[in-house]
Amino acid sequence: MDALPITPRSKVKRVNKRGHYDRQTIYRILDTWPLCSVAYVIEGKPYLTPTLQWRQGNHVYWHGSSASRFLRQASGQQVSLNVAILDGFVMARSAFHHSTNYRSVTLFGEAEILTDNHAKEQAMKAMFDQFWPGRWDALRPVHAQELKATSVLRMDIAEGAAKIRVGMPVDDDEDYELPIWAGVIPMRYGLEAPQNDPQNIAGVATPQHIMDYRLKL
Amino acid sequence: MDALPITPRSKVKRVNKRGHYDRQTIYRILDTWPLCSVAYVIEGKPYLTPTLQWRQGNHVYWHGSSASRFLRQASGQQVSLNVAILDGFVMARSAFHHSTNYRSVTLFGEAEILTDNHAKEQAMKAMFDQFWPGRWDALRPVHAQELKATSVLRMDIAEGAAKIRVGMPVDDDEDYELPIWAGVIPMRYGLEAPQNDPQNIAGVATPQHIMDYRLKL
Repeated sequence: MDALPITPRSKVKRVNKRGHYDRQTIYRILDTWPLCSVAYVIEGKPYLTPTLQWRQGNHVYWHGSSASRFLRQASGQQVSLNVAILDGFVMARSAFHHSTNYRSVTLFGEAEILTDNHAKEQAMKAMFDQFWPGRWDALRPVHAQELKATSVLRMDIAEGAAKIRVGMPVDDDEDYELPIWAGVIPMRYGLEAPQNDPQNIAGVATPQHIMDYRLKL
Repeated sequence: MDALPITPRSKVKRVNKRGHYDRQTIYRILDTWPLCSVAYVIEGKPYLTPTLQWRQGNHVYWHGSSASRFLRQASGQQVSLNVAILDGFVMARSAFHHSTNYRSVTLFGEAEILTDNHAKEQAMKAMFDQFWPGRWDALRPVHAQELKATSVLRMDIAEGAAKIRVGMPVDDDEDYELPIWAGVIPMRYGLEAPQNDPQNIAGVATPQHIMDYRLKL
């Protein structure tokens, strides 16, 4: 299964020179950056929610409050999920060829809601283990009421594409002779030092799993 | 007009403690970070495209290739647009109260496509002037054919909300006594030094407008 490419939504996309359909590329982008957008349709209109996604095998997961109107009725609904990482600004010799370097995955599919508390807890633990290894085990156990208040959704990674742009601008042939600076301004992502909650009890030091935490970007 | 708040999509959102409906807050987030997602509906299904947005007055703009099936038929269609800036990870004493600090704007409305080449060029110039001040005037003039190949869309900033979370975790009262480290891990965004295109002609130095370029984050 993991060896099979995912399906593009349209034949047009298959010829897109920036498109990638192999699972390794798609998984790597999903695993790099948690922030995503999920789009869905209510009464014919598009809705869009930014949230965090994580991956387990061939599923992408997200979660939210059980009080959310959409999340409660989402099961079986069509959704589209996008992760986009802006890697830099591509400064060409013409306005038209300005671009960005980026890594992006867009997926299409049907949302499935987890109803079982144990399955929800396992999924939330998997999220923590992916985002912040070591964190889950440092926390107090989850209460059943908290799981009830949390909606966990997932979808098959089956249809969609990754799109990636890297490198220098691609200008019109004749523009390479112009005395105009062209190049790339790369983005940089990082973390500041952890800030202690002033309400931490005396003697609680910053744990190793927090000191060791790094972005995967 | 600019003094009027925008309209939340539902009354539920009005009571959201992280919600903001004043234009100043919404404009500031839009002006801070260009990357956005645009959601739309084709044949009842949700689609999602990451792209760059910019603002002129009370409109948010985005653009793409005129070859895009959706962009060509987008005028009058309902869209939803989201900008989300992840500011940090909020590490609580329980899994349930883990969160993120973020700034986000979600807008709803009807897409309007610019058809006039002059209006398109003015909009593209405004994008450059907002993203990279000084860049537009350093480039060769835009060709009419390039404007024809570019679809520029906009929507009124009229319905939606900003959502903002800042600060330390908010834990259950009894959990503050636990010997568990809590705090915030802030994100940091920056730029690397500009990389020259190896195909720049001899003697073309990195211009001041590139040296001076800073993110607004």
